[in-house]
Amino acid sequence: MRARDLAEPFPTVNLDDQALDAARLLAEHRLPGVLVLDEAGRPKAVLPASQLVRLLVPGYVIEDPSLAAVIDEAHADRLCEELTGVSVRECLPRDAPEPAVADADDTAVEVAALMARTRSPLVAVVEHPAGPAARRRGGVAGGELLGVITASNLLHRLLGNA
Amino acid sequence: MRARDLAEPFPTVNLDDQALDAARLLAEHRLPGVLVLDEAGRPKAVLPASQLVRLLVPGYVIEDPSLAAVIDEAHADRLCEELTGVSVRECLPRDAPEPAVADADDTAVEVAALMARTRSPLVAVVEHPAGPAARRRGGVAGGELLGVITASNLLHRLLGNA
Repeated sequence: MRARDLAEPFPTVNLDDQALDAARLLAEHRLPGVLVLDEAGRPKAVLPASQLVRLLVPGYVIEDPSLAAVIDEAHADRLCEELTGVSVRECLPRDAPEPAVADADDTAVEVAALMARTRSPLVAVVEHPAGPAARRRGGVAGGELLGVITASNLLHRLLGNA
Repeated sequence: MRARDLAEPFPTVNLDDQALDAARLLAEHRLPGVLVLDEAGRPKAVLPASQLVRLLVPGYVIEDPSLAAVIDEAHADRLCEELTGVSVRECLPRDAPEPAVADADDTAVEVAALMARTRSPLVAVVEHPAGPAARRRGGVAGGELLGVITASNLLHRLLGNA
């Protein structure tokens, strides 16, 4: 069982996409986060849904939660305006870690070890045309994104024979 | 739109449940985490799927990832034995934060503010028979868990009219 067999399609956005579109994607698929790709199509970060919620809430409400109660339904409907014209790049938390990246040839146990070490809820799987040797030389550059392995999918496969 | 209207059913486990059962629950529902309740049925923590993956991987492999490649398929099938006889309580990371808890009467904006402040991907919703005043006096004690609001569900509802 290799990473290529475990990888599943996963919604991605680009750094210059609109944050509002990323939020709609997350909302539609009920995902806890979306994978962000850089200009070269490489996994750059994971944008959590909670970060987008954070951007919807006016700063004065985060500072003083008692003010949340005074925002009425009509205003709540306009919260999404906060995201209009904002790019995904501008939404990423400064401390957003780079996503964990596995090679398509990695075994399930290697993926699990990577996930355990990085405490990451998902691992991006990249195919390298030139194989693992090229990866060791050049990082993930030039690889093609095959999909994503989530922690729960990995559990599903590892426990499958239990 | 109140927290009670936003709350959705969400799998829960108890502190003394078997970790293997929690892992199966996460795997079956493809969830990034499960809500852990204490002896009184109060939200105690969120157990992330990545933490269970971490427990499946032998310590020497996390220390030295190159050893992961030497674990063959047959051994991979037995990884789940690592979880046998281990309780959820024993699996929780020591630094697991308490889950964010909203009152059933909180507005969507109050829930969003709570999520933003705690950077939590989900909020547990608790109904207090005696109302918000009792909550302020006594925390979440005595409340009944109505369900959970995930960040993506909240985005879905907040963007619903956009």
